[in-house]
Amino acid sequence: MEYTELDELGEFGLIERLTADFPLHNVSSLKGVGDDAAVIGHEGGKTLVSVDMLAEGVHFDMTYTPLKHLGYKAAVVNFSDIYAMNGTPTQIVIGLGVSSRYSVEALEELYAGIRLACERYGVDMVGGDVTGSKSGLVISITVIGTVNEADIVYRSGAKPNDLLCVSGDLGGAYAGLLVLEREKAEYVANPSMQPKLEGFEYVLERQLKPEARKDIVAMLKDLGVKPTSMIDISDGLASEILHLCKASGVGCQLYEDKIPLDPSTVKLAKEFQIVPSVTALSGGEDYELLFTIDQKDYEQIQKMASDVTVIGYMTADKGIAEMVTPDQHVIPIKAQGWNHLRKENSSDDSCVTK
Amino acid sequence: MEYTELDELGEFGLIERLTADFPLHNVSSLKGVGDDAAVIGHEGGKTLVSVDMLAEGVHFDMTYTPLKHLGYKAAVVNFSDIYAMNGTPTQIVIGLGVSSRYSVEALEELYAGIRLACERYGVDMVGGDVTGSKSGLVISITVIGTVNEADIVYRSGAKPNDLLCVSGDLGGAYAGLLVLEREKAEYVANPSMQPKLEGFEYVLERQLKPEARKDIVAMLKDLGVKPTSMIDISDGLASEILHLCKASGVGCQLYEDKIPLDPSTVKLAKEFQIVPSVTALSGGEDYELLFTIDQKDYEQIQKMASDVTVIGYMTADKGIAEMVTPDQHVIPIKAQGWNHLRKENSSDDSCVTK
Repeated sequence: MEYTELDELGEFGLIERLTADFPLHNVSSLKGVGDDAAVIGHEGGKTLVSVDMLAEGVHFDMTYTPLKHLGYKAAVVNFSDIYAMNGTPTQIVIGLGVSSRYSVEALEELYAGIRLACERYGVDMVGGDVTGSKSGLVISITVIGTVNEADIVYRSGAKPNDLLCVSGDLGGAYAGLLVLEREKAEYVANPSMQPKLEGFEYVLERQLKPEARKDIVAMLKDLGVKPTSMIDISDGLASEILHLCKASGVGCQLYEDKIPLDPSTVKLAKEFQIVPSVTALSGGEDYELLFTIDQKDYEQIQKMASDVTVIGYMTADKGIAEMVTPDQHVIPIKAQGWNHLRKENSSDDSCVTK
Repeated sequence: MEYTELDELGEFGLIERLTADFPLHNVSSLKGVGDDAAVIGHEGGKTLVSVDMLAEGVHFDMTYTPLKHLGYKAAVVNFSDIYAMNGTPTQIVIGLGVSSRYSVEALEELYAGIRLACERYGVDMVGGDVTGSKSGLVISITVIGTVNEADIVYRSGAKPNDLLCVSGDLGGAYAGLLVLEREKAEYVANPSMQPKLEGFEYVLERQLKPEARKDIVAMLKDLGVKPTSMIDISDGLASEILHLCKASGVGCQLYEDKIPLDPSTVKLAKEFQIVPSVTALSGGEDYELLFTIDQKDYEQIQKMASDVTVIGYMTADKGIAEMVTPDQHVIPIKAQGWNHLRKENSSDDSCVTK
């Protein structure tokens, strides 16, 4: 296979090639790529906007991240922000900073992943900017969404006694990262080693190719349940609970034994000598939805029992967020989360609890 | 002055501090910073979206770029894209990648520049993402704007015999860059030298703190002139003319002696032994508006003679864009523009003609 260097195409040639095959799905996408701005028509609804930036060496490690997966993930994590507002993502624009060590074909892989995510979620890519970068790859995706004003769910609407719910299971993305970092370390020590990834498919997919919970938003709507507050889990359950508490001016009691964990996540946590719940509390990148509902909706939410778990409840004790352990110890919830702003950006342990 | 390291605040602390003092100006900014997405209500109009990414060492050199100016410029170049659609910018979201060698105070300077631009142009900062970066600063701003459908001006509407017009004067931003690069080179050779910047104020401001032509869009509207096509000049007059020609399926005849150049730009070009018009054709970053009008609007546009120059006309010769020199030579227009995707990103001569 021949590789094309970026400067053979130039900026506009590259943009044309990367954006050539992005069909538009939404009637609101009036004008996509190819002008100074895209044109969007969101009649009747409100427009939602959010941006996420991913940087090589900080959010992803090219040693073990396939570019197509990376593109998929970069798009999906943005869609997740719109679902967390109870809205529908409709368009994205892509800001891409790229160093010359990437080939055109490598970037096409990245865009193939973005395209796949757009197809699966019915989102249109309508514009962007590609530029040079002195170091590696930087992907900044801005997502536009739409929502009826009455449907918007903010972080700030949780009330005392509301039930705290989470979709899916947590900690898997972090468990996957632990496996990838372990295999990378072994490979560095002994480059003839083959990585051992069999049996870890679930957590690897959680890390490398997460999904956004479009289905949860649809199910809640079908059941007539409007969450009182909602956020997506990008930084870890602990951090997101604190966000909801702070924005809503409430407290929270979380039950450790209610936190949904996949068996493979639990097994890996033990292997790495980490308390399993910590993968959920501090791991992040699960992109599940964390939300609160009024107690009157408890029966309805039971119908989603295979997808949603009640893990605690909100209290009037503003500023007090606590976790109750199975042996009835009560410990304060603290955010560890990712801290990409540390002096040392060693990527493997920044979210492990002490 | 004490400097605060980024990791002292952490991601959320930093975002809170940087975004604390951004008042909202537009009724359409229903919800700004502080949730998973911002909420915007553009009833009746269409929404415009555009993104621009600026990377340290590619688009700006921290040796001579004050951070406040950089923030101002990063915002303004985005507003310019919305004006180029004949729209009004209303909101921005900021993606910021930053290495730990920046202090919190340095980023506050950057945001002070963004805030000033937002104030001057009546735009609201409604969200963003701050993350680590392995090298320097990356700023990705997405701008949202609004426009009535009937007012939208695409690149694709130019017709044969339309007049080609440009606002302000061109080449100044590039002339400013030449001065800055010269003084930097002298400083590197002899660090005790003081940079000689006196007398170059106009071109330095064009480079370091450009403005977007909000006033031109307003004047055209007041005069009842709707351009048939429009683009902003970020990559150089030559490149933008070719964009209009390609999108509209027309040709162009440009008159070299009509290209508006400031006397200080001409003087500097001669000093650097560059043909003066080349600073306009290939320099870029002037953020003036390049647009075409129907000949029937010629009289009206004369009223803007101090701000707008007719520099040529469009032809039916699709694909043929030429410049007529004062001695009646006809030479094809070729885009040099910036090429940030080159292997060597030496920043000083990538847009100089051969």
